[in-house]
Amino acid sequence: MKIIVDAMGGDNAPAEIVKGCMLAVQNLGVEIILTGDEEKIKKHLTDDKNITIVQASEVITYEDSVNVVRQKTDSSMVVGLNLLAKGEGDAFVSAGNSGALIAGATLIVKRIKGIRRVALAPIIPTNGKSTILIDCGANVDCTPELLEQFAIMGNAYSKAVLGVENPRVGLLSNGTEEHKGNEKTRAAYGLISALPLNFVGNIEARDILDGVVDVLVADGFEGNILLKAIEGTALYFSKNLKEMFMKNIITKLCGLMLKGGLSGLKKKFDYNEHGGAPVLGACGAVIKAHGSSKALALSNAIRQAKKFYEAKAIESITNLVNQ
Amino acid sequence: MKIIVDAMGGDNAPAEIVKGCMLAVQNLGVEIILTGDEEKIKKHLTDDKNITIVQASEVITYEDSVNVVRQKTDSSMVVGLNLLAKGEGDAFVSAGNSGALIAGATLIVKRIKGIRRVALAPIIPTNGKSTILIDCGANVDCTPELLEQFAIMGNAYSKAVLGVENPRVGLLSNGTEEHKGNEKTRAAYGLISALPLNFVGNIEARDILDGVVDVLVADGFEGNILLKAIEGTALYFSKNLKEMFMKNIITKLCGLMLKGGLSGLKKKFDYNEHGGAPVLGACGAVIKAHGSSKALALSNAIRQAKKFYEAKAIESITNLVNQ
Repeated sequence: MKIIVDAMGGDNAPAEIVKGCMLAVQNLGVEIILTGDEEKIKKHLTDDKNITIVQASEVITYEDSVNVVRQKTDSSMVVGLNLLAKGEGDAFVSAGNSGALIAGATLIVKRIKGIRRVALAPIIPTNGKSTILIDCGANVDCTPELLEQFAIMGNAYSKAVLGVENPRVGLLSNGTEEHKGNEKTRAAYGLISALPLNFVGNIEARDILDGVVDVLVADGFEGNILLKAIEGTALYFSKNLKEMFMKNIITKLCGLMLKGGLSGLKKKFDYNEHGGAPVLGACGAVIKAHGSSKALALSNAIRQAKKFYEAKAIESITNLVNQ
Repeated sequence: MKIIVDAMGGDNAPAEIVKGCMLAVQNLGVEIILTGDEEKIKKHLTDDKNITIVQASEVITYEDSVNVVRQKTDSSMVVGLNLLAKGEGDAFVSAGNSGALIAGATLIVKRIKGIRRVALAPIIPTNGKSTILIDCGANVDCTPELLEQFAIMGNAYSKAVLGVENPRVGLLSNGTEEHKGNEKTRAAYGLISALPLNFVGNIEARDILDGVVDVLVADGFEGNILLKAIEGTALYFSKNLKEMFMKNIITKLCGLMLKGGLSGLKKKFDYNEHGGAPVLGACGAVIKAHGSSKALALSNAIRQAKKFYEAKAIESITNLVNQ
């Protein structure tokens, strides 16, 4: 099992990416192909067992537009995606520019037959479980038919990769009643209802963290608002808590005594613990690791890429969408 | 100054509503007209100074559809809105069904000339300040022109009622760059840019609680997702914190020592502290108090209704929209 990893993508590249790969080789028994600047990679590669490097001279940054994948053809991301497309590895992991990764997966790895758009599906930690949000920003102005395909892809991934037996699939809306929603979601409601999956109807943003669904279907514009509102609120709360504990010697002491509980709470909200977000709809297993990934998070993303490939989620999606 | 109050709307009606009115008479020097079941109201009315009752035999519940305002014509909400329309009071406050209140404001109080839709604009507590979110669910499938009117109304309210000198007006989007957004928000971006107000561009959901804008413009569908995601995450955090503090004798002791800080944090997130949400675009000052309002929250909503009327926000909106 060979995982291709973009050595140059993300805030902590290449140091933490390379470390994460060495960790993955140790713990997951995988082989790694690192794409990027060989010289820079080698600086951090203290153990090259089962790790090879494929040279790539360019780097795609966060500032680059999605069209960059057509221009920076010798970037670590494009070189990696080409290796995946040619079958020289089984999965691809990048912590770089999401928009470019989606565009690259579409143009280079290509879409599954019948799939109209490739989607980014991050996993939201919910009450000890995991909810896949599909889509979180790659696709805006979706048609109802696109939302229907998101339901199919999210359901397949939840089942195959996350091991949920009969995933509860919900539709993000402004109320739980069937008549709630906008024109698009009301039309999607009808389409998803007719699919052979466990559709539980409209879901309000307020209930997501209680883990009421395993798969949450949304237009990327709305999914993005949801995800960032949750992140922003969690961050705001943490900041305020921190200030509270730093106030004086007594509050600091309390912080010390509550350390276990606080780090448990932090862990509950920590996206890094949950690996990365699958890019769904492409003909290969692509995982977007969080931009701020350190070594552990990156190796978790590799673990998820391994599962993605092994669980044959792409075959499931292909079968379901062409039924 | 005479405020009409729906005595029968909300989870704690009529007891807490009546108490809130007595509080408002004491502290704000207003006269109150209470609409509802006279007998039930009188049970709680221990001091009727400056409070009169107008009998209404019906009650609109949360389960009622928006069409209810045409059917329950003798309900406390409809009777109150009619009094406002006839000029027998200066403002109207209800903690009842939001959808019915919006429909009633539109049908009975009527829209301001030139205004196409009445909007609900709750105030989000943000880092010690207040951000008006317009709209939060009353209107879905908005046109760009509607979003433009929301910007005008939110700006006028922020200036006149909340006393913000030059309100920063932002557009809820999936990124801060100008090209971000969906078809509707990109068109609205152009329209709002051309208005004579302080438009600061696209705003991400992640930054809202940092107080980056005074007025946040959104389609009701997306505004609803934002608001409920913030509420849900705050609730989830509070629940988890509570559990952490209840674990054992030491954590309980810490909770006791941190009481001041914790209640400060709670207060920061407490919608009740901030009165109610104005219903904007109607020809009268209408305030939606939170459904769970107790006496203090209700009297804060009355304070806001008083300001809404005194600040002549409706005249400002009328002038701006017909320029």
